Amino acid sequence: MVRILTKENVNQLLTMPDALEYVEEAYKQLTLGNALVPQRIAITDPAPGLTLIMPGIIGGKMNALATKIVSVYKQNPEKYKMPTVLAKVMIQDINTGDIVGIMDGSLITAMRTGAATGVSVKYLARKESNIMGIYSAGVQARKQVSAVYWGLNGKLEKCLVFDPVSSTADEFKKELEAELGIEVAIVGSGDEILSGTDIIVAATTSTTPLFSGNDVPDGVHISSIGAHAPDARELDSKTIERASILTAGLKEACLAEAGDYIMPINEGIIKEDDIISIGEIILGRKTGRTSDQDITVFKSVGISAQDVAVAKLVYDRALKENVGQDIDF
Amino acid sequence: MVRILTKENVNQLLTMPDALEYVEEAYKQLTLGNALVPQRIAITDPAPGLTLIMPGIIGGKMNALATKIVSVYKQNPEKYKMPTVLAKVMIQDINTGDIVGIMDGSLITAMRTGAATGVSVKYLARKESNIMGIYSAGVQARKQVSAVYWGLNGKLEKCLVFDPVSSTADEFKKELEAELGIEVAIVGSGDEILSGTDIIVAATTSTTPLFSGNDVPDGVHISSIGAHAPDARELDSKTIERASILTAGLKEACLAEAGDYIMPINEGIIKEDDIISIGEIILGRKTGRTSDQDITVFKSVGISAQDVAVAKLVYDRALKENVGQDIDF
Repeated sequence: MVRILTKENVNQLLTMPDALEYVEEAYKQLTLGNALVPQRIAITDPAPGLTLIMPGIIGGKMNALATKIVSVYKQNPEKYKMPTVLAKVMIQDINTGDIVGIMDGSLITAMRTGAATGVSVKYLARKESNIMGIYSAGVQARKQVSAVYWGLNGKLEKCLVFDPVSSTADEFKKELEAELGIEVAIVGSGDEILSGTDIIVAATTSTTPLFSGNDVPDGVHISSIGAHAPDARELDSKTIERASILTAGLKEACLAEAGDYIMPINEGIIKEDDIISIGEIILGRKTGRTSDQDITVFKSVGISAQDVAVAKLVYDRALKENVGQDIDF
Repeated sequence: MVRILTKENVNQLLTMPDALEYVEEAYKQLTLGNALVPQRIAITDPAPGLTLIMPGIIGGKMNALATKIVSVYKQNPEKYKMPTVLAKVMIQDINTGDIVGIMDGSLITAMRTGAATGVSVKYLARKESNIMGIYSAGVQARKQVSAVYWGLNGKLEKCLVFDPVSSTADEFKKELEAELGIEVAIVGSGDEILSGTDIIVAATTSTTPLFSGNDVPDGVHISSIGAHAPDARELDSKTIERASILTAGLKEACLAEAGDYIMPINEGIIKEDDIISIGEIILGRKTGRTSDQDITVFKSVGISAQDVAVAKLVYDRALKENVGQDIDF
């Protein structure tokens, strides 16, 4: 029997506080060596777009095994009136291997990417943080704000947002003020994000730094979830140089894909050993922030363990709450 | 919209002559460089079984993109009364990346594995072949016989079968005599398969050679689809040494996984260059059999392109014949 969950089902079942908890557990199990994130497979030619096949397994109390198939076809909106990014997640019973659930993966992706930032905020931001700033007002960005809100246990009061498309920023403001009851202030330039904020989130499609590290206020926590190629980055070398602690969703993944860390390493500004997986902090094996002046950085390129964890959460809840439809095939 | 196809749907839609045609096309496109078979991902610990993630893409007139997720959990029958091998195939629209079909994959696997042998028979067996022998009477073996039958254009008259479990052999005989109208003779030892046969198929779980190459009659075509590890083989070095032509479903896959070829290469009996992909024969780029005395060998370890081709066949036919159910998610 396969439980089929539509986008609406997933939306109904998945909350950010739960996603945070599950992604935190995934990071923990990864560091404990109880999880496996194989190198994802990328398929392009002769297709006109990119498909990523991302399986993963997490042991411990989670016991989750799943594969996300996500496609990125840039011509979809114009040519077929379909979204650029499409995804589904197949979840297996870890005890039998049987595929027992298939769900829409678009919200899973946004929520797990948000949750990564939320976990980093929980462990690395100053405790009294209540103002954030975010680069981009897109769909991903909205889940980032929700994740920061819950990472701060609801103490977020204000969010500064910059997006070159003003209608997108307007929607963002309307949506998040209603959803979270916070104040959203749209600013006219990227640099305005930096002053007075406790937490900075970069969630753009930019391949070059969004701000100068010289302008970053002391004490901020920065999470960068855009840019995931060795020659692309949202954070400049100065930001990395000034930071007291440099964390990653998974160190190995960032060393392979995150220009934000790879470029300063190549420039000799930091060493590979300076990067630590967030799981080390969660487990208390490494020290996080040590003062209110520390700048802390979290970089995530997105790994299957996040999808696996959130998909398992959704699947378990669907069974419990009788959501979705069962098909025997 | 996702077309869901049960095992029964697949069974209704999929015939061996069609599978042969599609697998042949897949081999052709692979050799032409219009198909991609990424290294499959294997997931084990902390699961108690093995999951293989096998995506693939085939261009040309087929234009197919799909991923098979297949699990092998040896404790399933005893512990959960479930099959050891479970599989599903997700098929994407190559133009949009959208997953448009999900089908049971167990029959797909058996049929595509059979079809590989069928294609090799079509191109390499002596034209007047009408007697085959097969090692194993299992489920895979039955599709092998059907494939040989269609690879010979229905000219197969007799099949010798050896299986250590006599009830399995009895079932095999009953099923295939009814299905194909051929004579099935159960023999009491592996060596009895060799005398008087035109085509020998090895479809066992054995990791050591099934017969001595010295006893292989001149002129036979041999297809080996069991054993897929560098230290496992169904064919001995003598068989390989005596063969005039050594083919593979995909040369690179066999050089990585097929002990039948790897061991004789390591022994210096053959060279890597002696192995050719069957696509080279199909395209007429390489010569196949040149005399009735030639021993020809085909080895397949199973590659995703076979699954992708057969899944596409099933999906296209399901749309055409309105089989299965559509779910929007």
